Amino acid sequence: MSIHSAEIICVGTELLMGNTLNTNSHFLAQEMVSLGISSYRQIVVGDNEERLAEQIKESAQRADLVIMTGGLGPTTDDITMAVAAKVAGRELVFDEDSFHDITEYFRKMCRNMPKNNRKQAMLPEGCTIFKNHNGTAPGAMFDYACPSEQDPDRIVKFVLLPGPPSEMTMMFNEEVRPVLEKMSDTKFITQFVHLFGIGESEAAERIGDLIDSQTNPTIAPYAAEGECFFRITQRVEKNEEEKDLISPLIAVMKERFGQCIYEIGTRPLKQVAFDMLLEKEMTVCFAESCTAGMVSSEFVDIPGASNVFMGSVVSYGNKVKSNLLGVSDDVLDNLGAVSRECAQEMAEGARKLLGTDIAVSITGIAGPTGESATKPVGLVYLAISDKNGTEVKEVHLSGNRMRVRRKAVLHAFNLIRMRLS
Amino acid sequence: MSIHSAEIICVGTELLMGNTLNTNSHFLAQEMVSLGISSYRQIVVGDNEERLAEQIKESAQRADLVIMTGGLGPTTDDITMAVAAKVAGRELVFDEDSFHDITEYFRKMCRNMPKNNRKQAMLPEGCTIFKNHNGTAPGAMFDYACPSEQDPDRIVKFVLLPGPPSEMTMMFNEEVRPVLEKMSDTKFITQFVHLFGIGESEAAERIGDLIDSQTNPTIAPYAAEGECFFRITQRVEKNEEEKDLISPLIAVMKERFGQCIYEIGTRPLKQVAFDMLLEKEMTVCFAESCTAGMVSSEFVDIPGASNVFMGSVVSYGNKVKSNLLGVSDDVLDNLGAVSRECAQEMAEGARKLLGTDIAVSITGIAGPTGESATKPVGLVYLAISDKNGTEVKEVHLSGNRMRVRRKAVLHAFNLIRMRLS
Repeated sequence: MSIHSAEIICVGTELLMGNTLNTNSHFLAQEMVSLGISSYRQIVVGDNEERLAEQIKESAQRADLVIMTGGLGPTTDDITMAVAAKVAGRELVFDEDSFHDITEYFRKMCRNMPKNNRKQAMLPEGCTIFKNHNGTAPGAMFDYACPSEQDPDRIVKFVLLPGPPSEMTMMFNEEVRPVLEKMSDTKFITQFVHLFGIGESEAAERIGDLIDSQTNPTIAPYAAEGECFFRITQRVEKNEEEKDLISPLIAVMKERFGQCIYEIGTRPLKQVAFDMLLEKEMTVCFAESCTAGMVSSEFVDIPGASNVFMGSVVSYGNKVKSNLLGVSDDVLDNLGAVSRECAQEMAEGARKLLGTDIAVSITGIAGPTGESATKPVGLVYLAISDKNGTEVKEVHLSGNRMRVRRKAVLHAFNLIRMRLS
Repeated sequence: MSIHSAEIICVGTELLMGNTLNTNSHFLAQEMVSLGISSYRQIVVGDNEERLAEQIKESAQRADLVIMTGGLGPTTDDITMAVAAKVAGRELVFDEDSFHDITEYFRKMCRNMPKNNRKQAMLPEGCTIFKNHNGTAPGAMFDYACPSEQDPDRIVKFVLLPGPPSEMTMMFNEEVRPVLEKMSDTKFITQFVHLFGIGESEAAERIGDLIDSQTNPTIAPYAAEGECFFRITQRVEKNEEEKDLISPLIAVMKERFGQCIYEIGTRPLKQVAFDMLLEKEMTVCFAESCTAGMVSSEFVDIPGASNVFMGSVVSYGNKVKSNLLGVSDDVLDNLGAVSRECAQEMAEGARKLLGTDIAVSITGIAGPTGESATKPVGLVYLAISDKNGTEVKEVHLSGNRMRVRRKAVLHAFNLIRMRLS
């Protein structure tokens, strides 16, 4: 049989109560995409027999594959295996090998096996068993006869996986994925186009003709904080030869967006800036006021940052701006700390103080307080200074204190990108 | 009407494709719990009219309240408002005020409003409108007549919220929650006890007797990054008199955890440190190596930080440690940048350089590289210096680069708390 569609059911009251963030759906969704299996729904239900059974039947009506995670534990409220088996009309039978694995697991940990773990070796008759290398609960796959009007012999695949992400992901990658690959007819190739300095709606408008006319590949716009990106997805059927339908679209997008495109792929803006600095063997430092270290901290997320990043001065108070960075009292007193001139002197001062090739400064009003008639919340000045001189940029950023600061951080990285490209 | 049950529908192909982690369900689930509204299902569907409409009807059959997030954007694939309105048999009508807010939003950002943003001001007739202070899409609440066998006049509430978490959470907290509170029969009083310096399981074990014996209030332990907390939840029926059952429990917890408790309430550790500094009218600065500005940046999230925070030096490279902070070459050459002595000289140097009452320094090995036989990844030294002297703390932190740095940040704030309490 071949699988075209899937639904993902995550079972667990802790998910319904919001005690646990549901990363399993996220992981499995990505896997389905790469397998070319369309997933139209993700569902979370609690450890409740009636609702779970109802949900499994519902999903089976719609999808060829129903993946369930969670509720395979040893306690009485772990019911997923029993409920799914019941829906499929299968008995749970004791599996010797699985029981052996479970006892082995406890032996290795030098712990006695609680009696109720035996329950985890009770599996639906005739199922495919998936081993759990990170825990005790084995997974299982089995068929459910779910006739439809079009197909009276319709079969739906049930796949049950443990809830803890470390157990689930390992089991999926090692045991489930190879099985599903054989069952999928389609493959999806995706590419991302990342833009900075243009809003989602304006960007979507500018290539509206492409978005509307395309069926394969498809183009979908997404808004991220302070930036936006397009996902281009090409569908390739199994026995169809693989043509590159994506590059021509990207060529058009390059024409329309020009410098706004900072990455075709998956590198974040800071990584793009870092790679440019590394390639040009240039060092950088930052002088941060309203961002107060966020630019430096974000930049250092990149392993190897020390190759280009020397350090920074967080000049939050004006004293630090004047004493350390040498911003003139004239500027601070007459034009204020949030001004083109202050940004310029901060960048130049930092470059001198820290002896780097490039220095970037950020000063602005993040809010909620501190705004004036001429200087609204969201007004930010950034400067970039190198041996060729200093360039200042004025931006107006929306959102609360945190968002203004986050967007300012992106502008700082973009300033490096623009200067070096 | 009163609301007992809810279903949460998150709309977005980016969720189905696994491009975005679904934090909205997680947030809303927690809110439902605190509102005393049972939520039995969370669903994710794509931007597909037919499936979305089907899902909304399905959920409305089961729940008094259907909360939808996402798909309120300006682009053509943003269809949630239109589909939900259609299901409820309501026309979309142009709302002057919302349109004004949207145009204002763009004006503030000095950007022209793209034509298609007008669409976001088209809202279901007679709906309650929720303002969006972090974006353009307003939210909405309206009734859907959904008769059941038991109740032919059954009404279901639809609540539609934008998808970006920063917009959704702010809108929910400020505008939606107060409305829902009036509609719930049960009230939940919650109190939080925050601990630092003890793991979740050990903490839970230490009050295991309380956790097991309590039914109302309930005590639930949560692990947060580098810390843990307990949520104490007391259930009060609407017409039941309100007794304080929580304080006695907190008294016991204080006995058992002592100094580990940094907050009874909701203040994060950094806020506790900030409030202590403010009360004692002391100023602070940071000297950051492995955290590279994260401590400063986190601290400045607190509005009014400028009252106590002057600035920081991000001394990532050793040159900056010696040139700016005056760390001796002897220490750097013989003991290394990750050493008690370096932390001490960084803190003392920063305090002198920036002229603050207190200085805190952080230097450590965040990984993935840079470890040695004697200095494993996760080894971090922190120092706090004031007029009475300098105190150095050695900690060993687990996790990847980002987690080690995040935990180090918390230790920096905790150092201030311990020093001032």
